[in-house]
Amino acid sequence: MKIVLDAMGSENMPAADVEGAVQAAQLYKQDQIILVGREELINRELAKYDLSGLNLSVVHAEEIIDMTDKPRKVVRGKPNSSMHVGLNLVKDGRADAFVSMGNTGCTLAVAMLGTLKRIAGVKRPAIGAIFPMPHRPILLDNGANADCDAENLLQFGIMGSIYAAVVNGKPNPTIGLLSNGEEEGKGNKLVQEAGELLAQSSINFIGNVEPKDFMQGRVDVAIADGFVGNVMLKTAEATARALTDLIRSEIKSSVLSTVGGMLARPALRRAGASLDPDEIGGAPLLGVNGVVMIGHGSSGSKAVRNAIGQARQAVDSGIVEAIKKGIETG
Amino acid sequence: MKIVLDAMGSENMPAADVEGAVQAAQLYKQDQIILVGREELINRELAKYDLSGLNLSVVHAEEIIDMTDKPRKVVRGKPNSSMHVGLNLVKDGRADAFVSMGNTGCTLAVAMLGTLKRIAGVKRPAIGAIFPMPHRPILLDNGANADCDAENLLQFGIMGSIYAAVVNGKPNPTIGLLSNGEEEGKGNKLVQEAGELLAQSSINFIGNVEPKDFMQGRVDVAIADGFVGNVMLKTAEATARALTDLIRSEIKSSVLSTVGGMLARPALRRAGASLDPDEIGGAPLLGVNGVVMIGHGSSGSKAVRNAIGQARQAVDSGIVEAIKKGIETG
Repeated sequence: MKIVLDAMGSENMPAADVEGAVQAAQLYKQDQIILVGREELINRELAKYDLSGLNLSVVHAEEIIDMTDKPRKVVRGKPNSSMHVGLNLVKDGRADAFVSMGNTGCTLAVAMLGTLKRIAGVKRPAIGAIFPMPHRPILLDNGANADCDAENLLQFGIMGSIYAAVVNGKPNPTIGLLSNGEEEGKGNKLVQEAGELLAQSSINFIGNVEPKDFMQGRVDVAIADGFVGNVMLKTAEATARALTDLIRSEIKSSVLSTVGGMLARPALRRAGASLDPDEIGGAPLLGVNGVVMIGHGSSGSKAVRNAIGQARQAVDSGIVEAIKKGIETG
Repeated sequence: MKIVLDAMGSENMPAADVEGAVQAAQLYKQDQIILVGREELINRELAKYDLSGLNLSVVHAEEIIDMTDKPRKVVRGKPNSSMHVGLNLVKDGRADAFVSMGNTGCTLAVAMLGTLKRIAGVKRPAIGAIFPMPHRPILLDNGANADCDAENLLQFGIMGSIYAAVVNGKPNPTIGLLSNGEEEGKGNKLVQEAGELLAQSSINFIGNVEPKDFMQGRVDVAIADGFVGNVMLKTAEATARALTDLIRSEIKSSVLSTVGGMLARPALRRAGASLDPDEIGGAPLLGVNGVVMIGHGSSGSKAVRNAIGQARQAVDSGIVEAIKKGIETG
């Protein structure tokens, strides 16, 4: 398997990206990790590591897309970017997946409009966020589409169902529609319309769900428009961060609790890891002709390594072919 | 001051409601707590407590609105409900505020359509959730209006600004518009339109904010439509619950960490309390002609007691008059 990593992606590029690639290459020795970006910058980073026995290669790309770039401009405006070059390797069959911690909007635009293009029949590709909880619930869309119609949400349901089935290994996964209440008649107009379409579809739709149902594992996949999904994901992250910070500062506030905190540290760490987004590292872009994983710009090497792991799993499961078939048959 | 409590509100009514009222009466001895609902049920609960020196009274209401009732039906269909009777006490000037842990949709409908009515000029009253964090940020709307237009969001900004100023004592509070990114051009169509209106208003609007800005105290008030606001609030609650449960089970998983957890228990408890919605207990319904506080159906006595405390503060601050003036002047 060949996985392309955009080495110019993260805010700490190329250091964090290259370090994550080296870690992934150590983990997955049978696979090839292809680093795409400015060759001299990548090689300078690679020189810091012992690469013996690792299957890493570098493909040069002259242009860099940064966090200030506008999606509409880069598709034609930076045709030699690491995103274009990397995604074209996947398009041309010379690699199996593309992973980037870079500008999400630009990754989407280059994948959808400039390189891989949408799967036939898919109106809007969506970003599926996998929550770092034991049951690995999936939320989509997580920001690709701020305004959606009911048919978009139906397709998100189909794609999310397929992802949960083939990648997370859940046969006949349950799909819920995120709402402000479970009762019939709850929800905004979009949710009410989408609920009717989802109920008529062939997926295992269980109706409206609230955030707690998603967090507690009552559904495998929750569907929302990209605005709501993004607010939900970021609220979960911000709350976990706020609570962790509070616990840390309260534990430090007395000698006894400091000692207690030290004894309980491994337990606290395990609990933290269960909600740590870096444990997943990447979110799949579903609905394009290839495996694409998108990570946070602030990702460190751990998130990069885990995003590459997610990409491997997605390739292994044949997600793109499965979505093609699923969208065809509805 | 006279505060009405809907004794038929919570899922554990009247036990939890009456217990909370007794606790509030112990705390606020100069005030009167008026319990409204089935007299015989309330008196049976009251008999469990030592009421000497407490200023508690009971007003009978024959009908009960429960969680399965539909807002549209109860306004005319249950005219003798505890909600109608209690809200009319406020409307008629015989009490200063109304507090209920009951069916939110029905409380809204009875307050807006059946009793207090909207403040002149207010298109849509909104529920303002106060987050239980040290800086007490306010999010509105939190579920009263699943579908909103830009002008609704502008009015939410004005009412939220006034609430933060007069109740939370924040002069010139900062107002942000909840979005899937801070950058200009981010947000769905509604957010983009509302952002323009808010920028032209006289409130201290600082632009788009993300959930983390709200959690970390970068804004005093965040504005969202009721669907998004409700998803955000419930996600924060569900995440805090999930993390707390994880920590508890991880701490129990070894002897050392169990000991550590015992030593750190007071610190962990303080951290938990900082994010415990029961510490606030009630959310104000802003934009009606009277002080109304709405709580979770699952509330226990602590939440009821604290919601009564919130209502006292709102009455003290003259929030209704302030909103009248604010909406008039824009």
